[in-house]
Amino acid sequence: MKLNIALLAGDGIGPEVVDQAVKVCDAIAAKYDHEITWKPALTGAAAIDAVGEPYPDETHEICASSDAVLFGAIGHPRFDNDPSAKVRPEQGLLKMRQKLGLFANVRPTFTFPSLIDKSPLKRERIEGTDLIILRELTGGIYFGERGRKDDNHTAFDTMTYQRFEIERLAKKGFEMAMKRSKKLCCVDKANVLESSRLWRETVQAMEKDYPEVEVSYEFVDATAMRLIQWPKGYDVIITANLFGDILTDEASVISGSMGLMPSSSVGSKVSLYEPIHGSYPQAAGKDIANPLATVLSAAMLFEDLELTKEAEEIRRVVNKSLAEGIVTEDLAEGGKSYKTSEVGDWLAKNI
Amino acid sequence: MKLNIALLAGDGIGPEVVDQAVKVCDAIAAKYDHEITWKPALTGAAAIDAVGEPYPDETHEICASSDAVLFGAIGHPRFDNDPSAKVRPEQGLLKMRQKLGLFANVRPTFTFPSLIDKSPLKRERIEGTDLIILRELTGGIYFGERGRKDDNHTAFDTMTYQRFEIERLAKKGFEMAMKRSKKLCCVDKANVLESSRLWRETVQAMEKDYPEVEVSYEFVDATAMRLIQWPKGYDVIITANLFGDILTDEASVISGSMGLMPSSSVGSKVSLYEPIHGSYPQAAGKDIANPLATVLSAAMLFEDLELTKEAEEIRRVVNKSLAEGIVTEDLAEGGKSYKTSEVGDWLAKNI
Ligand SMILES: CC(C)[C@H](C(=O)O)[C@@H](O)C(=O)O
Ligand SMILES: CC(C)[C@H](C(=O)O)[C@@H](O)C(=O)O
Repeated sequence: MKLNIALLAGDGIGPEVVDQAVKVCDAIAAKYDHEITWKPALTGAAAIDAVGEPYPDETHEICASSDAVLFGAIGHPRFDNDPSAKVRPEQGLLKMRQKLGLFANVRPTFTFPSLIDKSPLKRERIEGTDLIILRELTGGIYFGERGRKDDNHTAFDTMTYQRFEIERLAKKGFEMAMKRSKKLCCVDKANVLESSRLWRETVQAMEKDYPEVEVSYEFVDATAMRLIQWPKGYDVIITANLFGDILTDEASVISGSMGLMPSSSVGSKVSLYEPIHGSYPQAAGKDIANPLATVLSAAMLFEDLELTKEAEEIRRVVNKSLAEGIVTEDLAEGGKSYKTSEVGDWLAKNI
Repeated sequence: MKLNIALLAGDGIGPEVVDQAVKVCDAIAAKYDHEITWKPALTGAAAIDAVGEPYPDETHEICASSDAVLFGAIGHPRFDNDPSAKVRPEQGLLKMRQKLGLFANVRPTFTFPSLIDKSPLKRERIEGTDLIILRELTGGIYFGERGRKDDNHTAFDTMTYQRFEIERLAKKGFEMAMKRSKKLCCVDKANVLESSRLWRETVQAMEKDYPEVEVSYEFVDATAMRLIQWPKGYDVIITANLFGDILTDEASVISGSMGLMPSSSVGSKVSLYEPIHGSYPQAAGKDIANPLATVLSAAMLFEDLELTKEAEEIRRVVNKSLAEGIVTEDLAEGGKSYKTSEVGDWLAKNI
């Protein structure tokens, strides 16, 4: 198969982790006789520095004309504590999601047998966890009207949802649940928010089309609690953009390491694959960041292209590296640790 | 001391748990020579059923003219899955917070030595946790404009903050931090939300008035993760209404039981004390609910009235009941358990 993959390394540790995923994908291509053409493009703070824009048109064209996008991370501390910054790296991420029509962010949460004791949670609470959070990604308070009023003394943001936005996300959720344990949980704050009431109403109306799926409704505060108390209680969760942002990061603690959790963002022709961790600026350039979340995101990429054997091969080699302790310092527990690039080399060699 | 305390039992298990706190307070009054006059008033679904309104004016007058309010819980499932319900119990809670000017919700998170192994988190991660989340309670998306548009196909909510709302909450946070470990963390989503940028800006401008306090800023998604990974990293957290709703419930898992966590809501003349758990309708009327969160909320009430010995006495007797296993079934781990009312009687007798 011939594949064009847009490569958006982004900021901080982005370039380093993406490099390792490229090595792994190239090894897969060699083994299974595919031809991958990588199309590097600028994004984030790196793009602001180069061309004054975090998601330049040229980058968009490269993404839109590729078969998939592999993304590193975005964000730089020099913008975080400057509330008045006009251009921010994150705007690039949001623009990219919107322009590529990536309305659903898929974040699986699972545990790794060899790492389960690294979790802050007790083994019996998490062993066997296998849930997916489906986060709405191009609507809600991320994209509603916002601004200042009253001579800069008031600021506002608007959480807006349209019925069709909820429907298309929920449809994916129902379909996903059908292929899994047939349990769907809609997480909202319908006891307070009107947009949440529209979510609940819309999902309720869809229930009849999926009679086999058992649907439940939870308030986001309760979910924030139950996700830690008993993650095995969940199968597929659907939720709004902001709630999904919070819950997916929270859920990452279950596996014991954010450095391991992949994600995909889908919705339109081209899908995007990225680790859920951020740009981790403190580690940038040090060759110490954990590349596995990005490598596992590449596995999701192959999976979505129905290259199942390729995806499984990547997961196999990742599990092997964990079992044999070929890991970066965050997972080494004081034992021998390897550089980011060494882990990437090892993975590629073992494919 | 003569005390008038408004007693708002509310819905579900509210009446049962509040009853036990009353027994405990009465025992304290007898021992320390105070005179408590309880002023029962309607609220929540119970008030809707009785007078069609979840926070009737009469209830407000009773609260506003008391020295403090002791509150049970609010909410009934018959409203939760009816997105079109016109009157909801929760509206009563929000109206009460607003009309009483309770702009700050204080939720301490700590562990109980005798219960630490009940937490889903590992002992070494949580032992010694002692943090306070200060949640803004009368602003933000809970009180902004909301509604439907486009022939009911669009719903919106507005998250609005005014500078003074942030300032008064942050001031309490700084003052609290000064009395504790002098660490304040402002949690927001300033990389996306304009209202969060106003938060950050406002808190940054106040830093100079509290040079001894070490201030940090975090994005809410990161906090949702770090709160579980390393809760001992936090001292005082200040945050917006919606973020606080999610984070405080999440933080309750640390202690191992929501049934234990008290809170106070302050801001104006009269303060309110309530357990952080909900109305738990499945348990209502069964005399099985854990009354300790409400009893510990009463301890916060005495503390705020500078009746420190009284507050300590309540905490002592609660710890004693835990140590001796005089607990409701949620804490009994298959061992002997006691009824709600039996726990209350035991506590009162041991004062
Ligand atoms: C960087 C930030 C804008 C982004 C978000 O909030 O969506 C990130 O936290 C994420 O989850 O991908
Ligand atoms: C019942 C609900 C409206 C309320 C809230 O969201 O504030 C509750 O969750 C709380 O935290 O007190």
